[in-house]
Amino acid sequence: MATASSGSARKAKRRAARPRVSVLRIGHRPGRDPRLTTHLALAARALGAERMYLHPPDPSVEESLRRVASKWGGRFEVVPAANWRAVVREHAGGVVHLTMYGLELARLVPRLRRASSLLFVVGGAKVPSDLYRIADYNVAVGDQPHSEVAALAVALERVRGLPVRGGRAGAQLQIVPSARGKKVRVRPGSPP
Amino acid sequence: MATASSGSARKAKRRAARPRVSVLRIGHRPGRDPRLTTHLALAARALGAERMYLHPPDPSVEESLRRVASKWGGRFEVVPAANWRAVVREHAGGVVHLTMYGLELARLVPRLRRASSLLFVVGGAKVPSDLYRIADYNVAVGDQPHSEVAALAVALERVRGLPVRGGRAGAQLQIVPSARGKKVRVRPGSPP
Repeated sequence: MATASSGSARKAKRRAARPRVSVLRIGHRPGRDPRLTTHLALAARALGAERMYLHPPDPSVEESLRRVASKWGGRFEVVPAANWRAVVREHAGGVVHLTMYGLELARLVPRLRRASSLLFVVGGAKVPSDLYRIADYNVAVGDQPHSEVAALAVALERVRGLPVRGGRAGAQLQIVPSARGKKVRVRPGSPP
Repeated sequence: MATASSGSARKAKRRAARPRVSVLRIGHRPGRDPRLTTHLALAARALGAERMYLHPPDPSVEESLRRVASKWGGRFEVVPAANWRAVVREHAGGVVHLTMYGLELARLVPRLRRASSLLFVVGGAKVPSDLYRIADYNVAVGDQPHSEVAALAVALERVRGLPVRGGRAGAQLQIVPSARGKKVRVRPGSPP
């Protein structure tokens, strides 16, 4: 049984070692990008990030994610970031700028997985040029024009693994995985 | 040297075995979703899909992707699909519907990797209920509300691996991976 137990020990260690992740979205255009930025926040939440800082702030995106959390639970939140450089400066951990111009993700994954805390920075169409300098890593998911939602999703999956299933703390709704159709468990006592 | 050569043989075999992938986007809302659907198409292209069928058709998305191809090369295209059920019916290979209500992606990945050709179907907010039945697999990337762009990106990455780098056939532009800033190689003879 030595193999089995050292296997589980390795597994437990690997799980414990998943870095905690926050996301910083800069260059959001309120009024133009609400759906895209909401998708970015949903992807961040679904793939295990703890929060998304949003610059410039946009109460409509914050509200969308609050509605998601009230149904589906968990602690993910959208945090207004009037000053994004302060968020980068004050982050205690590696700062990873996702850009198609950066170094190949595959090469950096082993190092990123060992981090205890990471801040993934995701720009829009135009990115302030100092970001390339103040980030610890400029990382590319492929070298083709891309979607920031896709790049963030793939990077989170590679660094933290596929999302762990099961309802989140405080959830009213929980999905029961199903080969056909939709099965949702509603927690007793939830508002209709 | 036996180990090394059998290693490369295995590698070559694994690479050859990557399934060819098409994407079918249904429930697109022209006028409301152009950016989101363009992001979906860009993610499909960047992560190795060959085409994206679009229902209902939207010439503005087709045109966006043609512009990308004229600069960045490759053969990816957006194909108008007035009848999406015909696309599903005529696809010679597995049909994978991405939905948060489906079975866990991790469980299905080994089987999907062995396929020679896959069609990933991605819905919008509302999905026709017969899709759950006519798909070969209903597959979830996590069990939380999500972005279809993120779900497609993660599924493609898990099934086909991270994108292979290097300029595509006919590209005018090619990125040189860089730790800081942007380096782009412009092919001689390209239009300014």
